[in-house]
Amino acid sequence: MCHDQHVAINRQYRLAARPVGLPAQSDWQVTEEPVPQPGEGEFVVRAEYISLDPAMRGWMSEARSYVRPVAVGEVMRAGAVGEVVDSRTDSFPIGRHVSGMFGVQQYAVSDGGGVLSVDPHAAPLPVHLGALGMPGLTAYFGLLEVGQARAGDTVLVSAASGAVGQVAGQVAKIKGCRAVGIAGGAEKCRYIIEELGFDAAVDYKAGELRDQLKTSCPDRVDVYFDNVGGDILDTTLTWLARGARVVISGAISQYNRTGPMRGPSNYMALLVDRARMQGFLVFDYFDRYPEALRELTTWRAEGRLRSREDIVEGLDSFPEALLKLFRGENFGKLVLKV
Amino acid sequence: MCHDQHVAINRQYRLAARPVGLPAQSDWQVTEEPVPQPGEGEFVVRAEYISLDPAMRGWMSEARSYVRPVAVGEVMRAGAVGEVVDSRTDSFPIGRHVSGMFGVQQYAVSDGGGVLSVDPHAAPLPVHLGALGMPGLTAYFGLLEVGQARAGDTVLVSAASGAVGQVAGQVAKIKGCRAVGIAGGAEKCRYIIEELGFDAAVDYKAGELRDQLKTSCPDRVDVYFDNVGGDILDTTLTWLARGARVVISGAISQYNRTGPMRGPSNYMALLVDRARMQGFLVFDYFDRYPEALRELTTWRAEGRLRSREDIVEGLDSFPEALLKLFRGENFGKLVLKV
Repeated sequence: MCHDQHVAINRQYRLAARPVGLPAQSDWQVTEEPVPQPGEGEFVVRAEYISLDPAMRGWMSEARSYVRPVAVGEVMRAGAVGEVVDSRTDSFPIGRHVSGMFGVQQYAVSDGGGVLSVDPHAAPLPVHLGALGMPGLTAYFGLLEVGQARAGDTVLVSAASGAVGQVAGQVAKIKGCRAVGIAGGAEKCRYIIEELGFDAAVDYKAGELRDQLKTSCPDRVDVYFDNVGGDILDTTLTWLARGARVVISGAISQYNRTGPMRGPSNYMALLVDRARMQGFLVFDYFDRYPEALRELTTWRAEGRLRSREDIVEGLDSFPEALLKLFRGENFGKLVLKV
Repeated sequence: MCHDQHVAINRQYRLAARPVGLPAQSDWQVTEEPVPQPGEGEFVVRAEYISLDPAMRGWMSEARSYVRPVAVGEVMRAGAVGEVVDSRTDSFPIGRHVSGMFGVQQYAVSDGGGVLSVDPHAAPLPVHLGALGMPGLTAYFGLLEVGQARAGDTVLVSAASGAVGQVAGQVAKIKGCRAVGIAGGAEKCRYIIEELGFDAAVDYKAGELRDQLKTSCPDRVDVYFDNVGGDILDTTLTWLARGARVVISGAISQYNRTGPMRGPSNYMALLVDRARMQGFLVFDYFDRYPEALRELTTWRAEGRLRSREDIVEGLDSFPEALLKLFRGENFGKLVLKV
């Protein structure tokens, strides 16, 4: 089981330059180095799946954010799930499956900070990076805590077939809300209704968004769970119900802009509709991850929480796979199989 | 005391056209008609002071808002304070001073809807349109209910020498907050510190706003009470404390734009800082006006709530006086003395 650490090679993707707009191949540098030995209290993970997330674009830029930027020359930050292959701590023995911020590389050494044990029997490993991982937790706390979704509310979710959106819509349904998803294209729209049980879908690529919102949300929108920003956020602001909550979970439409971000020009609807717009970070709910994961896992076992993963093969597909996210070409949670 | 209603003439300002940009003289029509007789249950008010408010610009446009637009040809909507000069209701007898939405005219007939009795001995009449009127109530509920200002918070207020801003800053001080005001020009900045007791002032006309915010709010901003929108809102978003509340009370910088409103392009700071931006309308707190007015009146009597009114003489000064608001030329609550 244990590899010979003296000869095993760790292939890594490092940030070579700060991207301007979409990340280019030249923004990455591939390096190989020996897999390091774990120190006392540390362990070595062999990554099996690496998570590709919109937030990674933010980590590549120097703008102030909630974590320090990835330094040029550093291994790219990423969540991953894999198996412990060497260990000098009883907390994470060899053979244990774990998830954590292991980076875009084949092996990582960790002291266990921010690492969760995962049960590969509860769900396939990629699901632990999606519906039962950070995206699922983001949907759970964003919808229920920040958005305060309640039975009878109309909940609108953008990027509804994505990693976060698919969970947000299903949790809304479980909680007795009307769930409406915005997605790009007929196939994704069909999927969220037929497979995930959303009440309605809005195809932002087909026809006037506002007209579609009026049809699909006749009582307007009580909770808007926004993953995209831009035009879609701006239009949705014109269709809020009184006292609405706009949950700012992401703004993928804006992450690769080279100019200033576009602000929601209809934000004064917050006044007219006595509404609020609120941002959050899932990490702030770290203490409550276990309770949320128990609930999400139960729903999954009951067949009430489905998910789709979009698996791209091979570490070296990383640069191209990441672009799928920003082009809206992924269908479900995007992961890289190492 | 009672005028002869059969010959008295009521001079009125009516909306002649929907303005494009700043309201022009040609957007107004002056009419004169006999003062009407009150019906059963009604009364006639002779307006003494008319309130000029940024919100009036919104009422002149056709865009969806929280009240229906003023129709072309209709008397312009405005708050006012005056004396009952004829009455067929015991609720509002002749001689009573009242405030209400009486419009830009010398006389109004009312059935008492939305009308409050005011005590001219508690404060001069113009104050009942300012610190003890809608602006004061807006500051009170916006700061304490929407903004949830708590002792120790840094509270930043834009248009700080204006009708709402001056009350918001002083209530913040009364509640144990650090109050910082943004105003245009040295005289207004001096006023809010020396006369109103703000802890610091930021002159947005003098130097880089962000640098001044860093100096005047070393612990960042917990509550930003925004009356202006535009650049000032956008810059302040980059200097929020974690868990900050941005209270959207107005956006005077944007009301006369002919293109789309400018959205806050730094709104993703809401995510980074786990902050919220929330709009409100003071009318939603109507049931709590008496308690708030009691408190505001007490603070005023104790010398802890000061205010400045900017009084323009003559009903016919209305079109030009209104423009003072949008040019930032008023100093304190702007009212028209009829």
